[in-house]
Amino acid sequence: MNDMANTAVQAGKIMLVGIGPGSVEHMTGRARAAIAEADTIIGYVTYIKLVADLIEGKEVIRKSMTEELDRAIEALDRARAGKKVALVSSGDAGVYGMAGPTYEVLFQAGWTPDCGIEVEIVPGASALNSCAALVGAPLTHDFCAISLSDLLTPWPVIARRLDAVAYADFVVALYNPKSGRRTQQIVQAQQLFLRHRRPDTPVAIVKSAYRRREHIVFTTLDQMAEADIGMLSTVLIGNSQTFVREGRMVTPRGYANKYDLDEGGSTREGEKAGRSLSTGLLGWLQGLQAEHQAGATPDELARRHRLPADYIVQALRAPAEAPAAVTEEGEA
Amino acid sequence: MNDMANTAVQAGKIMLVGIGPGSVEHMTGRARAAIAEADTIIGYVTYIKLVADLIEGKEVIRKSMTEELDRAIEALDRARAGKKVALVSSGDAGVYGMAGPTYEVLFQAGWTPDCGIEVEIVPGASALNSCAALVGAPLTHDFCAISLSDLLTPWPVIARRLDAVAYADFVVALYNPKSGRRTQQIVQAQQLFLRHRRPDTPVAIVKSAYRRREHIVFTTLDQMAEADIGMLSTVLIGNSQTFVREGRMVTPRGYANKYDLDEGGSTREGEKAGRSLSTGLLGWLQGLQAEHQAGATPDELARRHRLPADYIVQALRAPAEAPAAVTEEGEA
Repeated sequence: MNDMANTAVQAGKIMLVGIGPGSVEHMTGRARAAIAEADTIIGYVTYIKLVADLIEGKEVIRKSMTEELDRAIEALDRARAGKKVALVSSGDAGVYGMAGPTYEVLFQAGWTPDCGIEVEIVPGASALNSCAALVGAPLTHDFCAISLSDLLTPWPVIARRLDAVAYADFVVALYNPKSGRRTQQIVQAQQLFLRHRRPDTPVAIVKSAYRRREHIVFTTLDQMAEADIGMLSTVLIGNSQTFVREGRMVTPRGYANKYDLDEGGSTREGEKAGRSLSTGLLGWLQGLQAEHQAGATPDELARRHRLPADYIVQALRAPAEAPAAVTEEGEA
Repeated sequence: MNDMANTAVQAGKIMLVGIGPGSVEHMTGRARAAIAEADTIIGYVTYIKLVADLIEGKEVIRKSMTEELDRAIEALDRARAGKKVALVSSGDAGVYGMAGPTYEVLFQAGWTPDCGIEVEIVPGASALNSCAALVGAPLTHDFCAISLSDLLTPWPVIARRLDAVAYADFVVALYNPKSGRRTQQIVQAQQLFLRHRRPDTPVAIVKSAYRRREHIVFTTLDQMAEADIGMLSTVLIGNSQTFVREGRMVTPRGYANKYDLDEGGSTREGEKAGRSLSTGLLGWLQGLQAEHQAGATPDELARRHRLPADYIVQALRAPAEAPAAVTEEGEA
């Protein structure tokens, strides 16, 4: 790569465009406008076909999946020549997408914001958003995304992450769960999860969301490694509260912790609408401090609350009082 | 709530519409079409203003944030009367959004897919996608979303999740990081993270992404609790590899593990393009089994690889051979 000092003065632009799941109706207005504005379109063949109506008369560079760095370098070359380039990704260009490799290539080449090449990232719905929308409401509580691809990430890093989030009861979206060559990663992921989660934990496998070959399978953690999973699948593993009912996978938000849904939604005893739970931070700190005064050691409290002992020691020192009353709207 | 048996026969519909960050250009075509198709629009006042041009002549029910269950109940009532209802959320309706509470209310009322009320969830870019797009490329590796609100979730659950993902080196997006009443959750989150991450870990705080009062601050983990954080902020905490350069927060994807970027992108010794890393699952298993044969006990290996000993025992039994050669395109 050449030094950035030779960059052309005319304004080039690199737009990283997330087109969502891959059906035209789920693209944003800005994604369409960015593609329309571009002189050059670079992307994986499948995605370029989806915007065929927008690209007439433009230079189109079709690339296969293994050439991510090449795509970024090509985009930079065109932008240096004053062109506007749209790098088209499915999903969100920032989620396991081209945004990262592109910035890595730009920095390597000495790019700065005032060098004459503008960079814009156009956000879109990532696979986890699209797949969740199709299966119900699995992501209404804390969740994470983990790629099972070990082509760029050492396995112990991936395994450590799987173990940590299985333990801490996250809903998990597995990206790149399996390929022709990588068949054992999903088996290992299952084993790591089964150490912490019930065998009947709901799992949804979504292939080609919002596309012609869309296919959704509901299964359970103990069965998921046998399911039909491929390169175009996303695997959603529920948390300990997630259930499947009427063909919908739902993770409850926690209203049942505060409201009695059978009684027309009145608050449970000791709870107040718009306020932290009695087991929220301040209530919990007060309880913790009371347990400690009653003789429980930090080690005992750590085991009881399943939290590290040194955090318990810190928490015992924290102020356990609410701040002065604040008038506030806007929380559940 | 009444029993579902009384539901009207005419086809009602509930559409849960994620409108993205809250600027019209980042809405999807389907989100606009769903709002245009609806007879009744229900949502938080701020979001309804954004689609003011689409709602003329429709019934509009403006609700405040604390009334999520009420909004879902109202949507169900209208749908029972054969109306099409759009429940409008910012971001993605499935990510800490209305999709969960709505299904909870529907199931409570005995809803089934063939009861005459259709439910559609329209995915959109969630806050983590929008905020990431504005700050650079922080989410190009495994990430998670954690809400710091303890209004429906006990604090120990939140603390356990923070601790787990800080340890396992995820990029983290904190939703609902702070409010007028909840000021200490962000301090506790910081303390939990500092037990595992460097004090200078990059942090970005994004307020009102893509809206008029958009405001972005870059800071570091040891400073983040002092930053201006509110109800409309999302906090992005980098992983151990995340850096800020030229005003962009970037998490490298890991190309440097495989390619020598200084040498024009040739693969490093022992690595092959399109194949798992030498430290990928199969290579790692082979190494692990060799270490074991050389005398290392599972406990020693567990400490060395920072993984649970019982997982190491399982891994020592796993097949460490590649499946028969498969012709395959499509991985980095």
